[in-house]
Amino acid sequence: MSQRWQKVDAFLQDVFFVTGNRFKLAEVEAVLGKMRHVDLDLPEVQELDSRKVVIAKAQAALQQGYSPVLIEDTSLSLTALNGLPGPLIKWFLKALGGEGVYQMGLSRNDCQAEVRTIFGLALGPQTLIYGEGVVPGKVVPPRGRGFGWDAIFQPEGSDMTMGEMTPEQKSSFSMRVRALQDLRVQLERFHASIARDDD
Amino acid sequence: MSQRWQKVDAFLQDVFFVTGNRFKLAEVEAVLGKMRHVDLDLPEVQELDSRKVVIAKAQAALQQGYSPVLIEDTSLSLTALNGLPGPLIKWFLKALGGEGVYQMGLSRNDCQAEVRTIFGLALGPQTLIYGEGVVPGKVVPPRGRGFGWDAIFQPEGSDMTMGEMTPEQKSSFSMRVRALQDLRVQLERFHASIARDDD
Repeated sequence: MSQRWQKVDAFLQDVFFVTGNRFKLAEVEAVLGKMRHVDLDLPEVQELDSRKVVIAKAQAALQQGYSPVLIEDTSLSLTALNGLPGPLIKWFLKALGGEGVYQMGLSRNDCQAEVRTIFGLALGPQTLIYGEGVVPGKVVPPRGRGFGWDAIFQPEGSDMTMGEMTPEQKSSFSMRVRALQDLRVQLERFHASIARDDD
Repeated sequence: MSQRWQKVDAFLQDVFFVTGNRFKLAEVEAVLGKMRHVDLDLPEVQELDSRKVVIAKAQAALQQGYSPVLIEDTSLSLTALNGLPGPLIKWFLKALGGEGVYQMGLSRNDCQAEVRTIFGLALGPQTLIYGEGVVPGKVVPPRGRGFGWDAIFQPEGSDMTMGEMTPEQKSSFSMRVRALQDLRVQLERFHASIARDDD
């Protein structure tokens, strides 16, 4: 990196965030400030490791000229299934619904689960900075409403599922908010390290 | 298609088959004759429909200059899981092993399953010819050896798993051989239709 940023905040204004979801965009901008937004349909590769999904998406976005670019992947993993569904959760929900995913834990006598968001900020094909946020909990019979697995995931320390919470309650258990806060920390560290190199 | 082939067999000699597996190559050439072979690592996208996995791989191969190109995808689906794992079978085996996949059927009281191979022969970005082969059966506790799900899949009409069969026995239950035979039929039909257009 020969480029030197004056401030992380100024740099972030140049970053493209790839999403088709306005709510995600609002959530990201609440932590990282105003960014450039692009609604791209990028292929999701088959992997159990979210970082590899993020890397493939970042490469595809860079190839299309979006640089620097921020990519997000959120996954739900069951301990009893050795990490499945992980980033494949979308297909489990599509085939089996929330109830079916819960039954998978139940049939193995272990409903322990975690949700995880990985943000990858690609400065170029060789430089990715990650932010990670994890919320431990368990899968339960569906209660409440919301997107995807919200109704079957009950975070540790709560007696409600994500689907039963108000937006304010939900944000205190948000793997995405935690991942964004971690990304900001990692980005400040990276910035400090290149600033030091320049001295 | 303005190009006209004299014979399907001559055309097939120009086709690139993408695989890193010598045994698959031999199996394909036994039905389709000698082809060009390329060992490419193409990304597999997340889909429950094998055809979409094949389409994405074919587009990637064409972009790299391999044209015409033949792509293969094999999947295993459980009735009880509404089509899962499907093309995602690799990750289920990685996380849970064959025994774990069998347990998934058992816990839903339905071990009915099918294995399916889709071959996609891309003549260009807009022209894909498919061959499909399906073998119905069930998942059972692992018996015998072999690659992937061989030891847990028992085809209808057999009291052995694929993992217990000799190569000769196995080929009579091969979804891949059936798909190749279907592909040849589809290709002959396509050839006949463009020959007719030229008249």
